[in-house]
Amino acid sequence: MGFSLYGVELASRLLLGTAQYPSPAVLADAVRASSAGVVTVSVRRETGGAASGQQRFFALLGELGVRVLPNTAGCHSAREAIATAQMAREIFETDWIKLEVIGEADTLHPDPFGLVEAARELTADGFRVLPYCTEDLVTAAHLRDAGCEVLMPWGAPIGTGRGLNNVYGLRALRAHHPDIPLIVDAGIGLPSHAAAAMELGFDGILLNTAVAGAGDPVAMARAMALAIEAGRAGFEAGPVPMRDMAAPSTPVLGTPFQ
Amino acid sequence: MGFSLYGVELASRLLLGTAQYPSPAVLADAVRASSAGVVTVSVRRETGGAASGQQRFFALLGELGVRVLPNTAGCHSAREAIATAQMAREIFETDWIKLEVIGEADTLHPDPFGLVEAARELTADGFRVLPYCTEDLVTAAHLRDAGCEVLMPWGAPIGTGRGLNNVYGLRALRAHHPDIPLIVDAGIGLPSHAAAAMELGFDGILLNTAVAGAGDPVAMARAMALAIEAGRAGFEAGPVPMRDMAAPSTPVLGTPFQ
Amino acid sequence: MGFSLYGVELASRLLLGTAQYPSPAVLADAVRASSAGVVTVSVRRETGGAASGQQRFFALLGELGVRVLPNTAGCHSAREAIATAQMAREIFETDWIKLEVIGEADTLHPDPFGLVEAARELTADGFRVLPYCTEDLVTAAHLRDAGCEVLMPWGAPIGTGRGLNNVYGLRALRAHHPDIPLIVDAGIGLPSHAAAAMELGFDGILLNTAVAGAGDPVAMARAMALAIEAGRAGFEAGPVPMRDMAAPSTPVLGTPFQ
Amino acid sequence: MGFSLYGVELASRLLLGTAQYPSPAVLADAVRASSAGVVTVSVRRETGGAASGQQRFFALLGELGVRVLPNTAGCHSAREAIATAQMAREIFETDWIKLEVIGEADTLHPDPFGLVEAARELTADGFRVLPYCTEDLVTAAHLRDAGCEVLMPWGAPIGTGRGLNNVYGLRALRAHHPDIPLIVDAGIGLPSHAAAAMELGFDGILLNTAVAGAGDPVAMARAMALAIEAGRAGFEAGPVPMRDMAAPSTPVLGTPFQ
Repeated sequence: MGFSLYGVELASRLLLGTAQYPSPAVLADAVRASSAGVVTVSVRRETGGAASGQQRFFALLGELGVRVLPNTAGCHSAREAIATAQMAREIFETDWIKLEVIGEADTLHPDPFGLVEAARELTADGFRVLPYCTEDLVTAAHLRDAGCEVLMPWGAPIGTGRGLNNVYGLRALRAHHPDIPLIVDAGIGLPSHAAAAMELGFDGILLNTAVAGAGDPVAMARAMALAIEAGRAGFEAGPVPMRDMAAPSTPVLGTPFQ
Repeated sequence: MGFSLYGVELASRLLLGTAQYPSPAVLADAVRASSAGVVTVSVRRETGGAASGQQRFFALLGELGVRVLPNTAGCHSAREAIATAQMAREIFETDWIKLEVIGEADTLHPDPFGLVEAARELTADGFRVLPYCTEDLVTAAHLRDAGCEVLMPWGAPIGTGRGLNNVYGLRALRAHHPDIPLIVDAGIGLPSHAAAAMELGFDGILLNTAVAGAGDPVAMARAMALAIEAGRAGFEAGPVPMRDMAAPSTPVLGTPFQ
Repeated sequence: MGFSLYGVELASRLLLGTAQYPSPAVLADAVRASSAGVVTVSVRRETGGAASGQQRFFALLGELGVRVLPNTAGCHSAREAIATAQMAREIFETDWIKLEVIGEADTLHPDPFGLVEAARELTADGFRVLPYCTEDLVTAAHLRDAGCEVLMPWGAPIGTGRGLNNVYGLRALRAHHPDIPLIVDAGIGLPSHAAAAMELGFDGILLNTAVAGAGDPVAMARAMALAIEAGRAGFEAGPVPMRDMAAPSTPVLGTPFQ
Repeated sequence: MGFSLYGVELASRLLLGTAQYPSPAVLADAVRASSAGVVTVSVRRETGGAASGQQRFFALLGELGVRVLPNTAGCHSAREAIATAQMAREIFETDWIKLEVIGEADTLHPDPFGLVEAARELTADGFRVLPYCTEDLVTAAHLRDAGCEVLMPWGAPIGTGRGLNNVYGLRALRAHHPDIPLIVDAGIGLPSHAAAAMELGFDGILLNTAVAGAGDPVAMARAMALAIEAGRAGFEAGPVPMRDMAAPSTPVLGTPFQ
């Protein structure tokens, strides 16, 4: 069950976002229920509010005992993302950064060009970059060349809850990058979506809306944690091959164990 | 989390088959790992082998402390199934019967006609019938008229591991029979398949090949148990609605908790 | 391209329904644009209106030069369907009958039990029965035993426009009944749905709502006719096998024709 | 039915590749059966063979009376693609170029970075660029900025015959670029795949393997032409909306036309 990101061992394969919860108390309970060891925090949001709210939020994260992965949500260019990452390093005292460079405002589509540019510069500046990207194989290769040791492809656009839009593309990405952690980030809506991603061999799941927007966020956080564990365990257990036509699972005569 | 079949409360929503395991020891470990409270046993198989093997198998079931649900696997007519059910009642001292009437040998396709006939007769004879059926709405209504208080539609043909072949049909079945337990029986290959069935609102999953035929049956048994719990919890937690186009999960300005 | 139903050669593999058109003129134009040689007519509807409307409708069908396949839409029992078929034979002077026995009012789900009973009786009475059924393999076998030499499984419930809900089941039905005409009846919404059914090896398509309810019914009638011809031609032409990973379609060096 | 690429009106929405046919005669017959007005030719292949074979191939294209769209298949960098495009302009006396820059050898995955660079330079040099790209929204925007007035996203990797791997992504691309021609290029295996792409609102289809590799390439060429026409006509005719639950297509009482 070993899983590590940039040399840091993590017990849970679920990474949780911190936006959009009904209240800080629900967020805290959801994080606990999820067993997530890493939560991602929007630097722009947290530095955009009142100082008192920010302090309470940071105190909350401290109490939860989780590693903070700051993100550059809301950045629409490499420049913005780099500046935001630098601010994040100061505030959160970490060189980890979830790199988001948005290339299209409606769908929050990752910008492959901006991502590669920002990743290169941030890596050179000592950051550990976890890019939110698509399943594009060529962009993936460039991001690795730029120093990324983890990739975080989307399942579907942020907040859609559609699951895995392009299973073929995700399988190809996994097949071409067997040697680094790959985390499906965004688009997960249901526990079965998360399990399916893990069954494809992905190493972890980052999600936010599916939990924060659920009727009962705390229950959904636990459901997602179970599903991710189930999917990973299923992947490792060696599933039966799919058969086209039915075969009896129950031999009629004779006992198998004698 | 209440779940009951014919008035019997069950802690686990997973029902496990007992065929095709590499050894009795693996079967026993898989049952334990699955936390299943009910296992299904083929009457024809267990009465077709040597008496010593049979006794050891029954002893094993006794040690596991699970409820036995005998099944009529291998029966191709209502007559055969009824006779097999009667034998089952004597051997296993239970009035529960998983009713299989096979209408097509290659795919082990349930026979709607034979099922309804056998269900009517068995119910009149005091049995508690759990029919292995398809998602057909009309057959379902007839089976209920015949006294069945639980239905067990397939996801896909037995042993195929394809998951849910007809999601629309299964949703319709659930919608038309909200008031009785519905268990997806057969076709499950991966934990995500089981979770997806539970997210549709099904009450439980019966599976066999997916566990018995896995590379590591014990690990897969646990994976399935987790997935079923995840899917049910997700269903109850109220998932986010699927959106067609992306929406930001991270508001850029302002903190929500102040 | 030979295609025959009960010994009658048909030039077109499209059978068209006659309900729900904006006007008789549009119906007539749609039938012509579709090149359909057979149209299906609801006996109950046509005998339920004013005599003058009925006569005009029959005159219209006569002008179109198409074979009329009367149907038992709206019948909820074998009894009703049999009586309706007998009325149809008198009115339309044909022994062909599209047999509908509805088992569930909301979804217009075919009733396998009522279908088999009515088919048996109607065949004995000299009818040529074309049953609207599901993809159920066992029901199909019973319908053939009852004398049906054509089966018409649904793609999806009537009027839903969803296409093929259970591709696996339809493939299995085709594989188990290679020797008789199978027509997908109901559920088609788009030309690609019709083409996909033909690519599975089905012999024809019966549809109504997809054309009658389209923005431009006449244009859609032609589109469906083209799609059915395309799907059939593609099936017969021997499609390339699907490959999992990409292969170059353009060898870089050397010309293949020398 | 107006369809134009860079100001040139085209009667057919099918563009056909010229590689991999069993013989030049079959290629010629397939082009005729397809009614394609544009065929694409690999510059590298045609300049890599013997001069006599090349001349015969060019003579064949001349006889067919089709517009030649040279392509840069086999180019793995912007440099190579630009040089190949320049050679194409001399040989084929056209400023149209189907731009392929391959970023990953196994899957022939388009390279977004190389594409944008080459498109910019080729446009500045007077070319009319038709780039073979993915459904990536950001790359699409950059390609338009680089001067492309047509985009040709893949359905699936070249030669796989899988159809449309990412329907959601293709829909989003169409929605974000309503004002230019979009042609699905690669991955089509069956007529229904081509029809489905047209139903999404795409303007045309470019395919090669599906026809050249079919059992009967000429028959498949015609099937694809029909399917594309069907899909387009269906799109324009205004399909019925998909319904979740069934609705009757045949009102039981009353005739609608009186």
